[in-house]
Amino acid sequence: MPDRTLLEAFATPSDQPFVIEHISDEFTSVCPMTGHPDFASVVLRYQPAAPGISASKRSGKGRANGAPAGGCVELKSLKMYYQSFRNEGIYYEAVTNTIRDDLARMLMPVWLQIVTHWRGRGGIRSVIRAEHGKVPEQWKTL
Amino acid sequence: MPDRTLLEAFATPSDQPFVIEHISDEFTSVCPMTGHPDFASVVLRYQPAAPGISASKRSGKGRANGAPAGGCVELKSLKMYYQSFRNEGIYYEAVTNTIRDDLARMLMPVWLQIVTHWRGRGGIRSVIRAEHGKVPEQWKTL
Amino acid sequence: MPDRTLLEAFATPSDQPFVIEHISDEFTSVCPMTGHPDFASVVLRYQPAAPGISASKRSGKGRANGAPAGGCVELKSLKMYYQSFRNEGIYYEAVTNTIRDDLARMLMPVWLQIVTHWRGRGGIRSVIRAEHGKVPEQWKTL
Amino acid sequence: MPDRTLLEAFATPSDQPFVIEHISDEFTSVCPMTGHPDFASVVLRYQPAAPGISASKRSGKGRANGAPAGGCVELKSLKMYYQSFRNEGIYYEAVTNTIRDDLARMLMPVWLQIVTHWRGRGGIRSVIRAEHGKVPEQWKTL
Amino acid sequence: MPDRTLLEAFATPSDQPFVIEHISDEFTSVCPMTGHPDFASVVLRYQPAAPGISASKRSGKGRANGAPAGGCVELKSLKMYYQSFRNEGIYYEAVTNTIRDDLARMLMPVWLQIVTHWRGRGGIRSVIRAEHGKVPEQWKTL
Amino acid sequence: MPDRTLLEAFATPSDQPFVIEHISDEFTSVCPMTGHPDFASVVLRYQPAAPGISASKRSGKGRANGAPAGGCVELKSLKMYYQSFRNEGIYYEAVTNTIRDDLARMLMPVWLQIVTHWRGRGGIRSVIRAEHGKVPEQWKTL
Amino acid sequence: MPDRTLLEAFATPSDQPFVIEHISDEFTSVCPMTGHPDFASVVLRYQPAAPGISASKRSGKGRANGAPAGGCVELKSLKMYYQSFRNEGIYYEAVTNTIRDDLARMLMPVWLQIVTHWRGRGGIRSVIRAEHGKVPEQWKTL
Amino acid sequence: MPDRTLLEAFATPSDQPFVIEHISDEFTSVCPMTGHPDFASVVLRYQPAAPGISASKRSGKGRANGAPAGGCVELKSLKMYYQSFRNEGIYYEAVTNTIRDDLARMLMPVWLQIVTHWRGRGGIRSVIRAEHGKVPEQWKTL
Amino acid sequence: MPDRTLLEAFATPSDQPFVIEHISDEFTSVCPMTGHPDFASVVLRYQPAAPGISASKRSGKGRANGAPAGGCVELKSLKMYYQSFRNEGIYYEAVTNTIRDDLARMLMPVWLQIVTHWRGRGGIRSVIRAEHGKVPEQWKTL
Amino acid sequence: MPDRTLLEAFATPSDQPFVIEHISDEFTSVCPMTGHPDFASVVLRYQPAAPGISASKRSGKGRANGAPAGGCVELKSLKMYYQSFRNEGIYYEAVTNTIRDDLARMLMPVWLQIVTHWRGRGGIRSVIRAEHGKVPEQWKTL
Repeated sequence: MPDRTLLEAFATPSDQPFVIEHISDEFTSVCPMTGHPDFASVVLRYQPAAPGISASKRSGKGRANGAPAGGCVELKSLKMYYQSFRNEGIYYEAVTNTIRDDLARMLMPVWLQIVTHWRGRGGIRSVIRAEHGKVPEQWKTL
Repeated sequence: MPDRTLLEAFATPSDQPFVIEHISDEFTSVCPMTGHPDFASVVLRYQPAAPGISASKRSGKGRANGAPAGGCVELKSLKMYYQSFRNEGIYYEAVTNTIRDDLARMLMPVWLQIVTHWRGRGGIRSVIRAEHGKVPEQWKTL
Repeated sequence: MPDRTLLEAFATPSDQPFVIEHISDEFTSVCPMTGHPDFASVVLRYQPAAPGISASKRSGKGRANGAPAGGCVELKSLKMYYQSFRNEGIYYEAVTNTIRDDLARMLMPVWLQIVTHWRGRGGIRSVIRAEHGKVPEQWKTL
Repeated sequence: MPDRTLLEAFATPSDQPFVIEHISDEFTSVCPMTGHPDFASVVLRYQPAAPGISASKRSGKGRANGAPAGGCVELKSLKMYYQSFRNEGIYYEAVTNTIRDDLARMLMPVWLQIVTHWRGRGGIRSVIRAEHGKVPEQWKTL
Repeated sequence: MPDRTLLEAFATPSDQPFVIEHISDEFTSVCPMTGHPDFASVVLRYQPAAPGISASKRSGKGRANGAPAGGCVELKSLKMYYQSFRNEGIYYEAVTNTIRDDLARMLMPVWLQIVTHWRGRGGIRSVIRAEHGKVPEQWKTL
Repeated sequence: MPDRTLLEAFATPSDQPFVIEHISDEFTSVCPMTGHPDFASVVLRYQPAAPGISASKRSGKGRANGAPAGGCVELKSLKMYYQSFRNEGIYYEAVTNTIRDDLARMLMPVWLQIVTHWRGRGGIRSVIRAEHGKVPEQWKTL
Repeated sequence: MPDRTLLEAFATPSDQPFVIEHISDEFTSVCPMTGHPDFASVVLRYQPAAPGISASKRSGKGRANGAPAGGCVELKSLKMYYQSFRNEGIYYEAVTNTIRDDLARMLMPVWLQIVTHWRGRGGIRSVIRAEHGKVPEQWKTL
Repeated sequence: MPDRTLLEAFATPSDQPFVIEHISDEFTSVCPMTGHPDFASVVLRYQPAAPGISASKRSGKGRANGAPAGGCVELKSLKMYYQSFRNEGIYYEAVTNTIRDDLARMLMPVWLQIVTHWRGRGGIRSVIRAEHGKVPEQWKTL
Repeated sequence: MPDRTLLEAFATPSDQPFVIEHISDEFTSVCPMTGHPDFASVVLRYQPAAPGISASKRSGKGRANGAPAGGCVELKSLKMYYQSFRNEGIYYEAVTNTIRDDLARMLMPVWLQIVTHWRGRGGIRSVIRAEHGKVPEQWKTL
Repeated sequence: MPDRTLLEAFATPSDQPFVIEHISDEFTSVCPMTGHPDFASVVLRYQPAAPGISASKRSGKGRANGAPAGGCVELKSLKMYYQSFRNEGIYYEAVTNTIRDDLARMLMPVWLQIVTHWRGRGGIRSVIRAEHGKVPEQWKTL
């Protein structure tokens, strides 16, 4: 079951803007209609919030799971979070929007983009792109 | 015979904008002049209408085939729709424009793009691009 | 319906051994179980019979369709023959063995090999290899 | 000899804007200086004129060869036109500009672009890009 | 849990020798030591037993699960069988040998080869090759 | 230990703007959490300061290590600098920001961009992009 | 018109065996049936005759065209010879066998192989392989 | 020694704007520090001056070497010019700027771009981009 | 310092012959002459000893480090062993032969092959292949 | 001028057979007929002589240049040797045979193979393969 409490963050290590991209080629979930597994590459791109801003804005969030909030997602926690979809029956679009929402809530980034590339079924491959905040134009088709 | 009544839709699952791309590498139709088969990859890209807007605007459409209208095309129905071109004698341009029109009427998307890549004949490969609504600049050459 | 009477041959143009390879990337038939189309690349390789031998051995064959027999398959007739499978419900193995049998009967080659590469279904791609006569070792895995 | 009377057109089949791309990997002409053959891939891209506009504007053109004018170039006639350069002694730039001029005169498109990719000589490959009308920015480097 | 009773076979459709290859790019199991998922492409190659031989030799086998035995594995059953490893904690070598054993028992082929290509962990990718019967030399490194 | 005193520069050899790109496929450091080595390709892109401007503005910088400052980084010194990270326990983001800062301080460029492509861990590859000055839009996603 | 008198040779420069391979990606001839151009890559491979042997055996050959015979084909003459097929109406098999015969007669090599890769027509690509002398097994499928 | 007097030009053959690109994969010079050879691909892109403008503006230039000036560089002369760097001890940046300056002086183009891709040394590959005039944005990163 | 005591093994899990291949793309050591780092992909291939044979033959080996001997190398221990070369000054050939010797002593395999692919220096890439036991012919050049 | 006295060797570091492969992508010489530069990738493969054998057999060789003989070629000396061809007017075949002879004399290997891949001229690429000793079959076409 997708479990966003697995996600952990650490404070943005620089006050200058930069962009982080994590590409997982090993995402799998289950089609809720057929019960067959789906396979995807999941691309996460975001510009983390500046250190100070993220700290102050987050303090009152009252995050349910008590995990420390922060500007950058910790890599191993991201991997565990992705693995929590393994046996979930869930459509392409819901996977993409769920990941976008969970990470945006956690990271409060300047902008964030999720792109899922699905191996496809019945001869049709699919790509779903979801955004949070103002994603710069040049990233939108990548 | 191309049959748009095969298409089915489901409601947009998010009220945040996102882009859907479906790539079929298994499209085939027949050249009306020579009777030889044509083969193409068909790329569909669109930004679905927001959930509320699409629901209200569509209610009075009186769609002839009674199929439920919606914001996102259902994948298996898309595959069956593409298969309905299999033995149709129809030119490249007509295939591309027909698919564009049928899907735009069904989905009422913010924008939609159809790109057909044909294996070609006589040493000439072809790509046809058709649009509905205001396709963002950066998608136009992809 | 697969129609071997479409095949035509011409006499081997040289009395020195040589090998002919024709690769069609545009083969399609229909799955007899699901009714969905299948797509394949079909590779035909063979060493044609020597001119004299093939002429004399063939004269008494009494071929049903009266088409001229010969050592090399005519390319356009091969294309038409492949197209005759377009709407046939037939399994991978049967396609491969049928083509092997039809061409071997027609061409009486020293050896002949058919390799079909299928785009696959449900995440599984398939390759079927069938042979006639003594195919040299080094061709068997290509 | 390059022969633009070979070109034929048909009326634009849609009143919505779309873009057509034809790629020929089998173009050859002759270097006028050395007499050696040159080989190129020729890319033609254009947005055809709208159906009504092209009909009315063209009626008074008095085209010398009497061929029917139209919005879209017929594929087989394009192939024959390209073949008419086969034994012509002509430079890269002249090939590119000639094709641009002949097709622009014939099709009266909204815009048109010709890109020729030459295999090169003496270790230098070349690409020549010519335009007619206002080619959108994003196409210019493709 | 790997479940060989999911496998189904059908009679070899030809009495001439041929080779079947099925490639699944969507295999996943779980590392028994770390609990993390493993991902592999699984290649199955085999030469099915001749129709008559396989029928007679198999009749007295008393196969525990009562499933019909045969010369060729049915594709959808192979897919379901592979999916039964999804949540199994099992090492690379055991996966490879288990698949080899289950299919060899079922198909009684002339020869059979299983090659598993694993995406790897800690910067090390792995390939495991297992065989049944006398696999021809030229297949052994593919 | 990352050692910026290893970096050396030479005066910009032209007063016309140009862009320099150096790509090192052999960067390695150590993960501070696990102690395992990390591997990256590091891309440095920058537009050097004009010759005169960089000379005058730099004269009062009082650079600690006394090395000559300049507009362009000397290649061998860049290699030695990268090698100084070899046994350093340091995160992806810190590597990227450190290199950006050290080179920007040294070169005082019009703009500068560092992109690090990491081979990844646990099935997730990462790319980090950091900037100094006003990097032109078209470079930002490369 | 194919003109073997264009071919020139030079004496084998070494008395130790070696293998020469020339690959021309710019071969073109004309289909005798349709009049359309054909395009091919032509691969020539051979082991030249040893210097002494080829000299003595050739002296009494009385070659019709009086051109100097030798162990290795001169590259520019090979190019001119290939160009002489440019406007010839000739089938794939005849091209391959003609080149094989002309070069074998000229070079008297230990062995020689001609492989022609044709871009194809109607969706079928072809490869023709012809041999002279005893071509080692490992070259036969390349 | 780089010798710009080797360059020759011919008049722009069209009064419509077009872009010329020449790619040489065979550039070599010598590192002035180590004496080892450097290898590069050199890309030249430019929009030639319009025929009339270039003629009139150039007439009073008093070009030192007396060679005819023009809008387009002649290909063989470009090759000879590049070869004149073969044994020159010269840095990457100087090569790039020298070629830019020599060609810009000769061709007086609307704009011109030189991109040199160096095979690199010590594990670092380099790309240098120099410009003359107003190079359109979309070319700058190619 | 290369440390073979890091290697661990486990008993061969099958008494049928199979082949194991592990590919590490992240090997690095140091050139003893220049002090610069070297980078390699290391391929290990072997056929493990049969379970019974390896157990009995190994019992009297008196392995110095007391680690359990066995037929298959444990993956994580292999990774740690490779990492122990990180700061060792050692030539390509010595790396390859050392790994071969350490693993052969540990695993007592039927055969074993080590192939190291080095990124190279000064424009020369290198591949070193070492063997233990009778490596089958078809593996020798892979 | 090709200078074999630049070559240096070191003693074979192992008494077990292994194979060494060095690939240089930066070879250049000059065509003696046209004066234009030629570019090649040069592949050297060999099995070095066993340590003892090579030492004893070589002692009485009386090598003219006094350089130390040995079983393995030193990499930097190989690079300098290749560079000595830079301005030599010499044909493809002579380059290949000269390198083969110089290295075979120096290294006295069990076997040695030189493969030169030339970028080609006039649309024809070439590969020359020369051998010393008994090169195993499987290497001959690589």
